[in-house]
Amino acid sequence: MTTTDELIANAARYADSFDKGDLPLPPARQVAVVACMDARLNPYGLLGLSEGDAHVIRNAGGVVTADQLRSLAISQRLLGTTEIILIHHTDCGMLTFTDDAFKAGIQAETGQKPAWAAEAFTDLDEDVRQSIRRIQADPFIPVKDSVRGFVYDVHTGKLHEVK
Amino acid sequence: MTTTDELIANAARYADSFDKGDLPLPPARQVAVVACMDARLNPYGLLGLSEGDAHVIRNAGGVVTADQLRSLAISQRLLGTTEIILIHHTDCGMLTFTDDAFKAGIQAETGQKPAWAAEAFTDLDEDVRQSIRRIQADPFIPVKDSVRGFVYDVHTGKLHEVK
Repeated sequence: MTTTDELIANAARYADSFDKGDLPLPPARQVAVVACMDARLNPYGLLGLSEGDAHVIRNAGGVVTADQLRSLAISQRLLGTTEIILIHHTDCGMLTFTDDAFKAGIQAETGQKPAWAAEAFTDLDEDVRQSIRRIQADPFIPVKDSVRGFVYDVHTGKLHEVK
Repeated sequence: MTTTDELIANAARYADSFDKGDLPLPPARQVAVVACMDARLNPYGLLGLSEGDAHVIRNAGGVVTADQLRSLAISQRLLGTTEIILIHHTDCGMLTFTDDAFKAGIQAETGQKPAWAAEAFTDLDEDVRQSIRRIQADPFIPVKDSVRGFVYDVHTGKLHEVK
């Protein structure tokens, strides 16, 4: 039995007690969260989110690249969100390597160098600011009055806002 | 008080009862989930995931684009995940528009057409297969033995596997 099989069995139990079948498509809290994919960062527990509340967008680092700008444009333009919350976190894997070394390793193994930037970073707060700036500079995201960035401490559970 | 302020207040309460400060960086269950950002789809509740278990990658549609391939390469190469679970869902916003119309509307409003594909789709199961194929074709994701795709029914809470 694979881990996937075990998680699918969990999903069957979730369905057995499911009582949220009438929720509307647009997020009730009108907020979109962009967070790192890190296993220790649970946006539902952390922010007190329930089914139906918020869009949750996640990737390696919680960095804003073209696909997050696409998702945010869809979130605001089609589904009415108006606030954006960015969350990076301490002890992030993205602090442990450089783009150059990571991509050189892949090239040595596969013969090809990825066409994407790995988006590794060395300063958490500064990378949050970088992601905020990419949103502020984007011409397709209409509502930018509340774009706020945070760093989550995986050892204490605390969130601090990046100014 | 904005919604963001309210969610930050929730985060302070999360920290007050936090007892997960010793979790390691690599996901315990060695799985990466790629899911839609939809507010009604809660991967933690659905799959029975807890803090520390799995990478969770999300965007508009749960579609696999370059940034998801980047995140999966980092997940597997640096943090040891070996299984991939894709989750799309019924009543998805991505079923409600076409790329051409969405981008023409943006162009009419802003004067610019986004350089990205919006990734709208018309057939849920087929789009899951499309995302699986993009992973299978990627040269930088090393482990592809368990790449499985599912559609979550937001009205019943049930998950069905796409074959």
